[in-house]
Amino acid sequence: MAKDNLTAVLHGINDLRLEQRPIPEISDEEVLIAMDSVGICGSDVHYLTKGRIGHFVVTKPMVIGHESAGVVAKVGSKVKNLVVGDRVAIEPGVPCYKCDHCKQGSYNLCPDMAFCATPPYDGNLTRYYKHAADFCFKLPDHVSMEEGALLEPLSVGVHACKRAGVTLGSKVLILGAGPIGLVSLLVAQSMGATEILITDLVQQRLDVAKELGATHTLLLKRDETSEQTLERVRKTMSAQPDISIDCCGAESSTRLSIFATRSGGVVVIVGMGPAEMNLPLFNALAREVDIRGIFRYCNDYSAALALVASGRVNVKRLVTHHFDITETQKAFETSRDGLDGAIKVMIHVQARNANNPIKF
Amino acid sequence: MAKDNLTAVLHGINDLRLEQRPIPEISDEEVLIAMDSVGICGSDVHYLTKGRIGHFVVTKPMVIGHESAGVVAKVGSKVKNLVVGDRVAIEPGVPCYKCDHCKQGSYNLCPDMAFCATPPYDGNLTRYYKHAADFCFKLPDHVSMEEGALLEPLSVGVHACKRAGVTLGSKVLILGAGPIGLVSLLVAQSMGATEILITDLVQQRLDVAKELGATHTLLLKRDETSEQTLERVRKTMSAQPDISIDCCGAESSTRLSIFATRSGGVVVIVGMGPAEMNLPLFNALAREVDIRGIFRYCNDYSAALALVASGRVNVKRLVTHHFDITETQKAFETSRDGLDGAIKVMIHVQARNANNPIKF
Amino acid sequence: MAKDNLTAVLHGINDLRLEQRPIPEISDEEVLIAMDSVGICGSDVHYLTKGRIGHFVVTKPMVIGHESAGVVAKVGSKVKNLVVGDRVAIEPGVPCYKCDHCKQGSYNLCPDMAFCATPPYDGNLTRYYKHAADFCFKLPDHVSMEEGALLEPLSVGVHACKRAGVTLGSKVLILGAGPIGLVSLLVAQSMGATEILITDLVQQRLDVAKELGATHTLLLKRDETSEQTLERVRKTMSAQPDISIDCCGAESSTRLSIFATRSGGVVVIVGMGPAEMNLPLFNALAREVDIRGIFRYCNDYSAALALVASGRVNVKRLVTHHFDITETQKAFETSRDGLDGAIKVMIHVQARNANNPIKF
Amino acid sequence: MAKDNLTAVLHGINDLRLEQRPIPEISDEEVLIAMDSVGICGSDVHYLTKGRIGHFVVTKPMVIGHESAGVVAKVGSKVKNLVVGDRVAIEPGVPCYKCDHCKQGSYNLCPDMAFCATPPYDGNLTRYYKHAADFCFKLPDHVSMEEGALLEPLSVGVHACKRAGVTLGSKVLILGAGPIGLVSLLVAQSMGATEILITDLVQQRLDVAKELGATHTLLLKRDETSEQTLERVRKTMSAQPDISIDCCGAESSTRLSIFATRSGGVVVIVGMGPAEMNLPLFNALAREVDIRGIFRYCNDYSAALALVASGRVNVKRLVTHHFDITETQKAFETSRDGLDGAIKVMIHVQARNANNPIKF
Ligand SMILES: NC(=O)c1ccc[n+]([C@@H]2O[C@H](COP(=O)([O-])OP(=O)(O)OC[C@H]3O[C@@H](n4cnc5c(N)ncnc54)[C@H](O)[C@@H]3O)[C@@H](O)[C@H]2O)c1
Ligand SMILES: NC(=O)c1ccc[n+]([C@@H]2O[C@H](COP(=O)([O-])OP(=O)(O)OC[C@H]3O[C@@H](n4cnc5c(N)ncnc54)[C@H](O)[C@@H]3O)[C@@H](O)[C@H]2O)c1
Ligand SMILES: NC(=O)c1ccc[n+]([C@@H]2O[C@H](COP(=O)([O-])OP(=O)(O)OC[C@H]3O[C@@H](n4cnc5c(N)ncnc54)[C@H](O)[C@@H]3O)[C@@H](O)[C@H]2O)c1
Ligand SMILES: NC(=O)c1ccc[n+]([C@@H]2O[C@H](COP(=O)([O-])OP(=O)(O)OC[C@H]3O[C@@H](n4cnc5c(N)ncnc54)[C@H](O)[C@@H]3O)[C@@H](O)[C@H]2O)c1
Ligand SMILES: [Zn+2]
Ligand SMILES: [Zn+2]
Ligand SMILES: [Zn+2]
Ligand SMILES: [Zn+2]
Repeated sequence: MAKDNLTAVLHGINDLRLEQRPIPEISDEEVLIAMDSVGICGSDVHYLTKGRIGHFVVTKPMVIGHESAGVVAKVGSKVKNLVVGDRVAIEPGVPCYKCDHCKQGSYNLCPDMAFCATPPYDGNLTRYYKHAADFCFKLPDHVSMEEGALLEPLSVGVHACKRAGVTLGSKVLILGAGPIGLVSLLVAQSMGATEILITDLVQQRLDVAKELGATHTLLLKRDETSEQTLERVRKTMSAQPDISIDCCGAESSTRLSIFATRSGGVVVIVGMGPAEMNLPLFNALAREVDIRGIFRYCNDYSAALALVASGRVNVKRLVTHHFDITETQKAFETSRDGLDGAIKVMIHVQARNANNPIKF
Repeated sequence: MAKDNLTAVLHGINDLRLEQRPIPEISDEEVLIAMDSVGICGSDVHYLTKGRIGHFVVTKPMVIGHESAGVVAKVGSKVKNLVVGDRVAIEPGVPCYKCDHCKQGSYNLCPDMAFCATPPYDGNLTRYYKHAADFCFKLPDHVSMEEGALLEPLSVGVHACKRAGVTLGSKVLILGAGPIGLVSLLVAQSMGATEILITDLVQQRLDVAKELGATHTLLLKRDETSEQTLERVRKTMSAQPDISIDCCGAESSTRLSIFATRSGGVVVIVGMGPAEMNLPLFNALAREVDIRGIFRYCNDYSAALALVASGRVNVKRLVTHHFDITETQKAFETSRDGLDGAIKVMIHVQARNANNPIKF
Repeated sequence: MAKDNLTAVLHGINDLRLEQRPIPEISDEEVLIAMDSVGICGSDVHYLTKGRIGHFVVTKPMVIGHESAGVVAKVGSKVKNLVVGDRVAIEPGVPCYKCDHCKQGSYNLCPDMAFCATPPYDGNLTRYYKHAADFCFKLPDHVSMEEGALLEPLSVGVHACKRAGVTLGSKVLILGAGPIGLVSLLVAQSMGATEILITDLVQQRLDVAKELGATHTLLLKRDETSEQTLERVRKTMSAQPDISIDCCGAESSTRLSIFATRSGGVVVIVGMGPAEMNLPLFNALAREVDIRGIFRYCNDYSAALALVASGRVNVKRLVTHHFDITETQKAFETSRDGLDGAIKVMIHVQARNANNPIKF
Repeated sequence: MAKDNLTAVLHGINDLRLEQRPIPEISDEEVLIAMDSVGICGSDVHYLTKGRIGHFVVTKPMVIGHESAGVVAKVGSKVKNLVVGDRVAIEPGVPCYKCDHCKQGSYNLCPDMAFCATPPYDGNLTRYYKHAADFCFKLPDHVSMEEGALLEPLSVGVHACKRAGVTLGSKVLILGAGPIGLVSLLVAQSMGATEILITDLVQQRLDVAKELGATHTLLLKRDETSEQTLERVRKTMSAQPDISIDCCGAESSTRLSIFATRSGGVVVIVGMGPAEMNLPLFNALAREVDIRGIFRYCNDYSAALALVASGRVNVKRLVTHHFDITETQKAFETSRDGLDGAIKVMIHVQARNANNPIKF
């Protein structure tokens, strides 16, 4: 096996270095993966620029990257679901399996979760990475490695829409048309939502949303009052939304979500905003509008994969930029600064399409 | 207003007559509807040929028909949701509103339900029919009257799939590719099912299912054992179905549903079969496969309409035959005998497309 | 029939008058009720002292009172569930029956709800009051009129605990030991909660809670920090609560509810506080702690009655004071000022125990 | 440590032997348990007398016993929740943790479940037994070892009532007053059921049920028709039950469950009857009466323990007989033949009350 294990390591704020790391040894229930594609997520950029997210603080060098796919290079002795050569998407968190949350089917809430690129755990923007075999999902030939990597944000959308209870005929308001807003749009459609209004401050992102099937888009104006925005939402939709999904995390968008949602409806908060917010709780409670946050995903990768594999959704449209792992620095800058209409920036650890029977 | 109120009245077994009936008077919360399109349902045929369904017995002349749409001709003084000229689909059952079932959101189980063409209540294959305004759904211009009539079977599919808990990535087995199996297919897809196997004894119906998007079809052979059928289902699907929807009501199909479904999955029974069946209950219980029947629909018309209006599904494909109300006899024969590949037979009370801004 | 219909009418802030009103005429589906017992609720006091609650404003004279029970004096021609002489508890809101909320089983969210003593609708602190028969619940002989009146707050507790998902073995934190906190305690116990900590600022209320079965009580100190309070909650309970029920509506209690609840748990907000609150939303979302408000109750009276009738709970303990309708002024003062350890103040429109086969 | 590891081993039909087995070695996440109390379950007796249950066949010697509690004698190096000397109840099945069922919170459906005394896995009627530490539940001092052992059947009741959706005010019909019917009764009460009718063929068991709080009991007569039984159920209860729990598994009881349950209600099947049954499926489907089986329990031990520890239920009443492990043969005969009013027969591996701070 190769000796090269070039790895993107975050040493501190704005200090991301490419360096060699030893190729990991696997245990009985793990696989070694030759990484192929790794998408850059907002949280990766956040660690790069701030060194922390909430109480997760980068205190020692940490490998970055967690939206990823690769090819199985070695399998542990007890692994049954995979063989060498399998192309897999990697669900990046491995829980303890044994706590109450794990046993009750909410492993995303496991306090002992080891999650890629969340301190103190290393991520997988590296040539060789080991992972629990049961958190690797074999991709069919017609699904590309890039799509495999995109299952990560897509699973956030799946989790959000499942928690929201999107169903046939749902009217949905999505706030924010970044990658997460867009995948929520794709998933909500696929679960039967028949009217979806998506908002953003950037017209170009709304254009992508429209292309992906939003029934309405609304460009927010920085100088309008919240009442005016609410009024425009009301006028645009045929009725109050059953569900609002806040995919930006601004206080203003969370407030709008609550006010806009129909009585008895649900507001799902995906966007991770400030620790504290001023909220119209009385309005929500007196109309029984439930407020539900979501944290990552849980048992959602299979559905995300089925969605892509069945050709139901076009996630490819989200990828706007491609870089080689050696260009990691530039890739992060592009993502961070939203340069050139960047939505999702993909980093290739191997040559593009090297592992795609059907080109991306 | 016209005096003509030609009406199709069932007088007894195989005794269906066209006769004049008085145009009904409406009360404050009702509307009078100039009927346009009425589809023939299996239950209509059943009443015609057997004079009863279960404990519902035709003991006096009964107007037939309940899958229908028309144009509002008059509105009661307290009606707010409709005006004269509105094109509407008619949800054919009006409950008591006040019993526990009604108040708990299960009005389909109301013991005082007045349901079109279910003894002792008259149906609406007639020129003028009155109905509770809150059970009429205004159609947008681009939705045809025929599609309005089809909301009735479509709502059965909606109710079945909601009770089944179809969700993103569900693997679904549908048994029977009649109108009900086909609408269940359309709805299951729209709610995110990514793999759907549909079975029937008739290849032509499976061909329609394939056209409508079934991922697999399976032609049952009359001479194979149930083990062989099960084996073929297993081989065809990528995994055991999460959900099976029995849309024929044969003992063999219900048994297959149970055996085929994955542990922890759900079998929904839509098909109305014999009063008694021999079932592998132990198999179901020891694997926690839930068995849920469905009875009509409840709060499902809006979603069915949204599905059609949004262009998500093509219900038009179900309509194979058109007749004028004066040809009612022939229409019923075609439906009863499945002549000429009949799936859904539509009866026109007014000239075809008379009320369709966009032709059917 | 008597001509006397002495009635407590709120004319404006702190202007509550006893005056004669005509005895109402009933329609076909209504009953006339000779009122017996009417409890005073915090909202009654609020209307008296502030003239409004949120956007509900008293703009014309309004009869006060909505926690009530009485004896059927007359029945409408279509009423089947009641006869003259029946002792009934009155569920004080009558919805439209026909909107989506009503049909979906959430009539408490009906925009056309007519609710006693909520402007512009009159309440029932009066000698004769008419009501929809289907919202009257016949009391068995051994249940007193006072208990009938208490079904109203008890139903709030039922609704709160059902929305919270209290189940066997739930650990519950209740904030506030007023009437609503106490009924939530009783209901949570009855639904299987095995550990219940209740907090208040007033020791005497905690003593009642203890008597009613709280496993722990916690007297809050006005001068401690929120961290200190949280710490004390943590130390008192065996684990983080699965469910917190905020029954006071203070920003501090809502915040405590969120911080205290276990990941994946539920915070139910019953207390109606200020329009806006500063909340740790990030903490809730990242731990998937759901926030659910409740508005009154819906399909909960039967369960509340069954609870009392079966002898499972002792609601009598809540009643601390009794007044005759002629002493209404004093009754309201006692309730408003919490005089003399007042928890629930009961007003008797007829002589105490006149209609109780078993004395209260 | 002691060398004696006397063990009850089933060698074949009616061939149960006491023999010495090696004391097991534990791994890092296991504990060694000095067994104290082991209850005899119907399934143990079934294996003894038939050598099989369904497709589980005893093909090699198998240690019997799975309703048990003991004292921790040794802990694995990674065990954090337990220390030597802890008194624990043992949840007898250990799943794979990694399959979809396990990850989705339904580990009871795990195909790789290793369950005590279910072939090919050994049970724990033995002096020393090792078990996964995370499936051992520490008992508080005031809970006896016998109660610890009874958590096993109690958990079946918890699982049944949770799957049934028992809630405040539920009316419940329980069929069969054996240990499982009785624990279902206790749990249903604790979850808020206010009316519970329990049936059996044996008056003495109904007497126990009455003592434990059943609101009604019904002694079935072998010579009455099913219509007559149904009629008597109808007359005894105040309304049709919302929920029926079949705890015997006879075709007649399952049929009665379906017919008796209210429309929209739930039938839960706990009793394991014949592979095939003739059932009134049409009746169930047309009234949307759901049929749900249960298989053991899942995440239910904590609630069962909380129920006992909180003093809410009296499970002690179920234990009618006590034997020493050396009397295993006699213990099984007593249980098998229902001698002397036997309900639950308890086998003591150590001297009675040796490990009970408070005597049983
Ligand atoms: N809860 C979770 O598990 C989870 C998982 C992934 C991402 N996230 C969060 O989801 C959020 C979105 O992620 P992303 O990658 O799409 O980020 P992004 O920054 O690319 O997209 C956010 C979008 O919202 C728009 N926006 C900003 N303010 C707005 C407002 N007031 N109303 C409407 N739109 C507004 C921005 O223009 C941008 O297009 C982030 O806060 C991220 O931390 C949460
Ligand atoms: N539960 C309800 O509320 C409700 C409402 C409407 C219809 N239904 C029932 O749904 C059923 C289907 O209605 P439909 O209009 O589609 O009827 P249909 O007779 O047109 O279609 C049934 C289809 O099932 C096929 N079939 C027969 N035996 C089969 C088997 N063993 N396996 C697979 N397929 C088999 C037939 O070839 C036919 O194509 C009927 O029983 C009807 O009574 C129930
Ligand atoms: N959502 C609904 O449908 C609904 C229905 C009825 C009542 N309510 C609301 O429920 C709340 C309680 O009603 P009530 O009749 O019991 O009122 P109450 O005023 O008698 O009781 C509130 C209790 O909370 C205590 N308290 C105050 N601040 C506290 C804090 N920070 N932490 C803990 N306890 C604190 C008070 O000492 C008091 O005992 C009110 O806000 C009322 O408006 C809501
Ligand atoms: N599903 C599961 O996971 C699970 C777990 C444990 C036990 N079980 C099953 O539960 C059932 C009950 O277990 P148990 O230990 O209480 O058994 P048991 O034999 O002691 O009790 C059954 C009771 O039902 C009574 N009975 C028999 N026929 C009846 C009828 N037609 N109507 C009413 N009562 C009738 C008997 O007199 C007896 O008292 C058994 O079938 C057992 O296999 C299932
Ligand atoms: Zn865990
Ligand atoms: Zn009704
Ligand atoms: Zn309404
Ligand atoms: Zn498993």
